[in-house]
Amino acid sequence: MKIGFIGLGSMGSGMAMNLLKGGHDVTVYNRTRAKAEALVDKGAKVADSVFQACQAEVLCTMLADDNAVESVVFGDGGVLASLGRGAIHISSSTISVALSKRLTEAHARAGQHFVAAPVFGRPDAAAAGQLFVVAAGPSEVLQTVAPILSSVGQRTFIISETPSAANLVKLSGNFLIACVIESLGEAMALVSKAGIDQRQFLEIITSTLFGAPVYKTYGGLIADRKFEPAGFAAPLGQKDIRLTLAAAEELRVPLPLASLLRDRFLTLLAHGGDKLDWSAIGQLAANDAGETG
Amino acid sequence: MKIGFIGLGSMGSGMAMNLLKGGHDVTVYNRTRAKAEALVDKGAKVADSVFQACQAEVLCTMLADDNAVESVVFGDGGVLASLGRGAIHISSSTISVALSKRLTEAHARAGQHFVAAPVFGRPDAAAAGQLFVVAAGPSEVLQTVAPILSSVGQRTFIISETPSAANLVKLSGNFLIACVIESLGEAMALVSKAGIDQRQFLEIITSTLFGAPVYKTYGGLIADRKFEPAGFAAPLGQKDIRLTLAAAEELRVPLPLASLLRDRFLTLLAHGGDKLDWSAIGQLAANDAGETG
Amino acid sequence: MKIGFIGLGSMGSGMAMNLLKGGHDVTVYNRTRAKAEALVDKGAKVADSVFQACQAEVLCTMLADDNAVESVVFGDGGVLASLGRGAIHISSSTISVALSKRLTEAHARAGQHFVAAPVFGRPDAAAAGQLFVVAAGPSEVLQTVAPILSSVGQRTFIISETPSAANLVKLSGNFLIACVIESLGEAMALVSKAGIDQRQFLEIITSTLFGAPVYKTYGGLIADRKFEPAGFAAPLGQKDIRLTLAAAEELRVPLPLASLLRDRFLTLLAHGGDKLDWSAIGQLAANDAGETG
Amino acid sequence: MKIGFIGLGSMGSGMAMNLLKGGHDVTVYNRTRAKAEALVDKGAKVADSVFQACQAEVLCTMLADDNAVESVVFGDGGVLASLGRGAIHISSSTISVALSKRLTEAHARAGQHFVAAPVFGRPDAAAAGQLFVVAAGPSEVLQTVAPILSSVGQRTFIISETPSAANLVKLSGNFLIACVIESLGEAMALVSKAGIDQRQFLEIITSTLFGAPVYKTYGGLIADRKFEPAGFAAPLGQKDIRLTLAAAEELRVPLPLASLLRDRFLTLLAHGGDKLDWSAIGQLAANDAGETG
Repeated sequence: MKIGFIGLGSMGSGMAMNLLKGGHDVTVYNRTRAKAEALVDKGAKVADSVFQACQAEVLCTMLADDNAVESVVFGDGGVLASLGRGAIHISSSTISVALSKRLTEAHARAGQHFVAAPVFGRPDAAAAGQLFVVAAGPSEVLQTVAPILSSVGQRTFIISETPSAANLVKLSGNFLIACVIESLGEAMALVSKAGIDQRQFLEIITSTLFGAPVYKTYGGLIADRKFEPAGFAAPLGQKDIRLTLAAAEELRVPLPLASLLRDRFLTLLAHGGDKLDWSAIGQLAANDAGETG
Repeated sequence: MKIGFIGLGSMGSGMAMNLLKGGHDVTVYNRTRAKAEALVDKGAKVADSVFQACQAEVLCTMLADDNAVESVVFGDGGVLASLGRGAIHISSSTISVALSKRLTEAHARAGQHFVAAPVFGRPDAAAAGQLFVVAAGPSEVLQTVAPILSSVGQRTFIISETPSAANLVKLSGNFLIACVIESLGEAMALVSKAGIDQRQFLEIITSTLFGAPVYKTYGGLIADRKFEPAGFAAPLGQKDIRLTLAAAEELRVPLPLASLLRDRFLTLLAHGGDKLDWSAIGQLAANDAGETG
Repeated sequence: MKIGFIGLGSMGSGMAMNLLKGGHDVTVYNRTRAKAEALVDKGAKVADSVFQACQAEVLCTMLADDNAVESVVFGDGGVLASLGRGAIHISSSTISVALSKRLTEAHARAGQHFVAAPVFGRPDAAAAGQLFVVAAGPSEVLQTVAPILSSVGQRTFIISETPSAANLVKLSGNFLIACVIESLGEAMALVSKAGIDQRQFLEIITSTLFGAPVYKTYGGLIADRKFEPAGFAAPLGQKDIRLTLAAAEELRVPLPLASLLRDRFLTLLAHGGDKLDWSAIGQLAANDAGETG
Repeated sequence: MKIGFIGLGSMGSGMAMNLLKGGHDVTVYNRTRAKAEALVDKGAKVADSVFQACQAEVLCTMLADDNAVESVVFGDGGVLASLGRGAIHISSSTISVALSKRLTEAHARAGQHFVAAPVFGRPDAAAAGQLFVVAAGPSEVLQTVAPILSSVGQRTFIISETPSAANLVKLSGNFLIACVIESLGEAMALVSKAGIDQRQFLEIITSTLFGAPVYKTYGGLIADRKFEPAGFAAPLGQKDIRLTLAAAEELRVPLPLASLLRDRFLTLLAHGGDKLDWSAIGQLAANDAGETG
């Protein structure tokens, strides 16, 4: 299958590489061309423009946020204008439910298909083709793109015929991770101020009830106050909570824990946390407790 | 070693049984005598009184709450008055940090030793001797009781020389579980109101990032709104959050997530939730969203 | 001075009437023409279009929300295209800080002036010319429009040269009122469940520390659970808290109390509260406490 | 009437003085005797002990907290043992609902009467006899003590036959004041970070909707960050929120705003705020926003 791929950040590069490994014919495009060139010796063709990348049966996009997706998709020379009728756009970016709905409608009007396929996993999982893919869209389209999705991930979950459902699942997943960070931050602030070793506390809870890697990973970062370099930067975390709250507001679902996370992220960013990993909100409970580490 | 055991509820019975299996000489006492008799054919001796159970080198107690422990330990014929000098009291109940400190001092004044050894695990784990034990106390005393602790649990974590530290770890662990329940409740209310199947959502998150059994167990209960019979009743959950907040207040550690949980439990209890499992707070986000299941 | 006036809802009608009383030459426009006709015998001229209303030195607008303002101002035949160079637009609508900034820039580019002059007060105060006006804009422009502002209000507060500052003050004022509602809702739920008469409680607090009319008015509505007809509808309250949070997010100011209010409004709207007065969030604490009035 | 008075702090001294002015026969007792001596030239007799002060028909107590009241009332030589049968104890201290209930029962068992009569007002109002008194107790007893209550206050509100109801009203009133402080703190943090002058903002809101003195007083303290000397110290504020939450927990009334205040007070105290006025929680929103004044 002829595939275009736009967005070669730390996630996108790994995904494109695995498409190449999977034997697909992949033309890549990135605003900073160097990242595209880096994939040439893996077999990628480099596009000079969004338009060129769109001369394909399937276009994959993996971009930072709503703004990046909007600017690539809409407007002159954008995806919408460049893709052929009947072509498929697979969007793996973590975007808002509202934008996903707008993309669904815009592609439909253009006689194109839209699939939302956000992923769970960090850059190393992307590089290893071990992502989890949550996909939503019309079933016959999902069937067509199944080989693509299985090239980038270890498992694909089909969640709905409505693309935006996949985006909501992705946002909800990130919300759940942020909840883990906040809860660890509070528990660790408490035991630490009582004189208990945070590392030992973490070992206890992760060897008993909380074996999931998120507890180990983020608990360790909080215990060490090691928030640089950022695996997932605080402004992205803040954005995801904002999008979760926006989706919830649209549906009239109050989410007090998400509201708390919102305030935590704003506090972090107000104190210059833009470069820190999002798990840095996990130190705020200790700060409030007068423990400065 | 000659062991007394007081408190044969669903947890205590399993623990006492495993002490018997471990070859210890165990005399059991329970307010409702029938539960004590039930252990006779496993080799237990039955005490007629707290005093009789205290004629031992080591006394284990596994009781419901602060009140139960206070009434068994203090006063005429209580543990404090009945245990010999040099004897050891191992308290596995989930009690307040304040009571644990008071017990530590009272036993010291009586020339006795106090060990806090709360456990993680449900009744089936207690029955299987598969609990996790978090122990704190003077190291030489912990060394003495190590065989006892390893009879009841699959692993013992020594956390501190100060007994109350173990109680705080136990409370913090329960707080973390309650956080999981609340976060699942909110995420599931959100995706559900968007028309996504909660079960499928759960499968996705638990097969990817949140593999820990607490997510599967409590997520399933919330999806099914199956809160009876209670594995761990709501008033006990409310109590543990109260004790967590009390310990935090003493240390001047603000815990906004624990405050949120407090309000959730009060809402649940205000609506007649006393008999429900504590995971029933996980339905409140959906209720607030106008989704009545 | 020749004045155009767009937006003759319950607030705008009163304001326009007072401009007429103040001896100004006022041309009014309203989407539903009947409301404009009603002012003819007070001396108003009726415009057939936004364009006609804009043939004035000063244009006043008093509209429901951002959408209404955007649709009247931008686009073909809108305010921006219709006002002459050097004309002044006074916007009294409660709009977002972001839209206020956008209007400031757009009018400047069109060689026009923009003043934000939101008001505090209910329809009866508008009818009586007793509003409080919070105005912001270039000082020489404010000087020019001073007679207009003093016709609609009992007092004008000049807050800044930057128009959006006035909008932020208005939003913050509404936020403070919503805080009063929430705090009363909680206090009254508490004393009421203890068997104390809410009306008597209200009398005590309003005759001692909380003499401000907002306490009497909203406390009375909550005590009587009388939320219809709405003086200020719940969706408008929800909108104002949303705009407050949006302005705060832009500035990176966490506002936990605003977050709480956000969740309260969503809960209310999720339960069909669209037609109720915004003070109906004041009953939610009692609902959570299992008190159904 | 022969009156005993125990507790001559800044509030109690003013109250005792007004009883003397009212022509009552007052015997005063204070742990630090000097404060008692200071009232001699106003006509007070000085008691050497709690017992002596209790040789009266009516005993008034005005003490700092539950502990102070418990230690004066219970035990050897305490109020309970010293007051005669038929005597009346008027407690004006801000104490817990639970202690008020306990006092009611204990006095009844001793054949004595108990009236709760907490007051609203600061030391200057106490000195001027301008307090507001909220009283609860058996009506015939309240009738008997009416002249006493009207000597210390400008107005007496009779709220219930159950003494603890008055204590709950007092706590709820303090809760409402703390809500004002928090809401002002958030609003002022917001407008201030937007470059708006806090003093001017305060003038606007207090000359329009929020004329009550609490807004002016506390808004001014927050604007000036002038939290010393403390008019009402932060630990007392924290205590009152704690007692409010305890009463609410007993009644199963969730109070999210009180929970937020609890966390604010703990944050303040964790950062060394013990000597500050309770309005210092009003600076925490600005701190979170990265504004350090």
